[in-house]
Amino acid sequence: MLTVKARAIDGPDQSFRAAEIERRDLDSNDVLIDIKYAGICHSDIHTAHGEWGPVDYPLVPGHEIAGIVKEVGPEVTKYKVGDRVGVGCMVGSCGECKNCQNGEEQYCLKGMVPTYAGVDKYGEPTQGGYSTHIVVVEDFVVRIPDSIGLDAAAPLLCAGITTFSPLNHWNAGPGKKVAVVGMGGLGHMAVQIAHAMGAEVTVLSQSLKKKEDGLALGADDYYATSDPETFEKLAGNFDLIINTVSAKINLDAYLGLIALDGTMVNLGAPAEPLPVSVMNLIGHRRSFAGSLIGGIRETQEMLDFCAEHNIAPKIEVVSADGIDEAYDRVLASDVKYRFVIDISTL
Amino acid sequence: MLTVKARAIDGPDQSFRAAEIERRDLDSNDVLIDIKYAGICHSDIHTAHGEWGPVDYPLVPGHEIAGIVKEVGPEVTKYKVGDRVGVGCMVGSCGECKNCQNGEEQYCLKGMVPTYAGVDKYGEPTQGGYSTHIVVVEDFVVRIPDSIGLDAAAPLLCAGITTFSPLNHWNAGPGKKVAVVGMGGLGHMAVQIAHAMGAEVTVLSQSLKKKEDGLALGADDYYATSDPETFEKLAGNFDLIINTVSAKINLDAYLGLIALDGTMVNLGAPAEPLPVSVMNLIGHRRSFAGSLIGGIRETQEMLDFCAEHNIAPKIEVVSADGIDEAYDRVLASDVKYRFVIDISTL
Repeated sequence: MLTVKARAIDGPDQSFRAAEIERRDLDSNDVLIDIKYAGICHSDIHTAHGEWGPVDYPLVPGHEIAGIVKEVGPEVTKYKVGDRVGVGCMVGSCGECKNCQNGEEQYCLKGMVPTYAGVDKYGEPTQGGYSTHIVVVEDFVVRIPDSIGLDAAAPLLCAGITTFSPLNHWNAGPGKKVAVVGMGGLGHMAVQIAHAMGAEVTVLSQSLKKKEDGLALGADDYYATSDPETFEKLAGNFDLIINTVSAKINLDAYLGLIALDGTMVNLGAPAEPLPVSVMNLIGHRRSFAGSLIGGIRETQEMLDFCAEHNIAPKIEVVSADGIDEAYDRVLASDVKYRFVIDISTL
Repeated sequence: MLTVKARAIDGPDQSFRAAEIERRDLDSNDVLIDIKYAGICHSDIHTAHGEWGPVDYPLVPGHEIAGIVKEVGPEVTKYKVGDRVGVGCMVGSCGECKNCQNGEEQYCLKGMVPTYAGVDKYGEPTQGGYSTHIVVVEDFVVRIPDSIGLDAAAPLLCAGITTFSPLNHWNAGPGKKVAVVGMGGLGHMAVQIAHAMGAEVTVLSQSLKKKEDGLALGADDYYATSDPETFEKLAGNFDLIINTVSAKINLDAYLGLIALDGTMVNLGAPAEPLPVSVMNLIGHRRSFAGSLIGGIRETQEMLDFCAEHNIAPKIEVVSADGIDEAYDRVLASDVKYRFVIDISTL
């Protein structure tokens, strides 16, 4: 066992505190990672605050992890000490079901093991990346290309793959009109990736406050959803809508923006069910779908794609003592566009 | 103008009565059809009863039309007198938008012209197939293969194409597991077509009353949706669910039956919006979609496919005086599986 430093939270209304947690001894295929940066994802906040169901506290969140390999188990073949690596939202899956066999571990039929707030194959609770070290089986570790800084790489492990995967799956590319709903951590990645894939990209954001950023990141158009004219003007316009907003939206208004055979994909889920007018789907053979992060192979593809196209999140690095304030600012939408914790400050 | 016999309804609470209506003189590309049979579709009932919005009465419903060409306009090239032909849910569209150009006239961006309760390009109200004759531009007429009786052909023009099109579009075929929700006019066609396409077909019906028929038509399995165990047993099982039921259903229960990357397609729309739990879509990259009849080219493909595979609806032929009783029996689900009006009794 390795005792390592971490930042933990003890309950929904608590603040983060310095903590020590145990990491397991290396199993034959395990990699010990010296964590350098961990991104702050909105999911961390939902989970830490117990909004997604009961949580075993103390909890150490963090599933956007970038670091350096410090030690490897005797049978590790993919990584060696000193390699630049990342870990995302999963640290395990059954490996045997047809989804795992197809490289879609996020849809493991027995349930994948989340990086934190889960239970690993040893029956131990998983603890995330707000910590100096983590031990992960090599199959759930990805390689970070040299051209991407470790600080910028961290958010790619969740925000990057969560947007890359549906854009890839639903064939965003030349000739396709893609709308990105929400210009936050996920949205600002979706804009860059869809643009690099060759699609025509439109941002649909509540206001025009971040318009300049959106256009600079590759958006061709930018509209405010607070303006009802937006929905008239863009009716039937998009082949693919990537909705990064988890809050409850007027789904029918957005479905009206989809062209024949187009799809709207939700990446987040509001707590309550969304009402959908079925006629709105029938009239143009539209689909409403959902997508969950991406598989490990696809995560590596995403990192290589980002390196090739010079894509990176816009980040603000904070110290370990700044996690609570960063959470407050995420909740106030006051972040451009992702907070990343400098783990050396732990 | 040609004055022809018809059966019309004068208001939501009225009965059908004998009537005379006018059919236009043949334009250069028009075909005059001597109607032999007209199917009774649930849409006829919704429209006749004013449930889908205000209707101009008197109304002559009927969009499952089979008959014989009696006369052709001077520039008609596709049909000659004596040909066996059909007309479905549309009698016109703009012909110029990208959907029309792609043979998807049902999704015409300017709106297709419905066979009844619409307005044609001459500004006249359209009247449907509960009538001895109809005049239709040749592009909206299809050829009925010799091996299909005109009585059995009629329901193919709506129930047949409405189920064939989504099965075709979403690639029902060998290796695919398809569920058909509802064993009525549409459902009993979907079972036959999906089976002929090579898919493994399961019927999900409220009860097991029609199980024997379902299996005889090609279903591999048949489950009652009134039994909660059905939803446990079949969780994550289907690649495609074709929902032929227009009534409000527990959408989340059905979405739970879809496998990774599967789709549930609604062919009818309940009056009220359906609540959907987005997490149910995200967890298995599921889609919820809609589909509207099919294009003219695809309708011809469907007829040829049905002829090739010996597929026909099970019908009960009624006389013109029996329309009201037939409507009552459709509403009571007392039909196996489609009523067809013998137009010679008008």
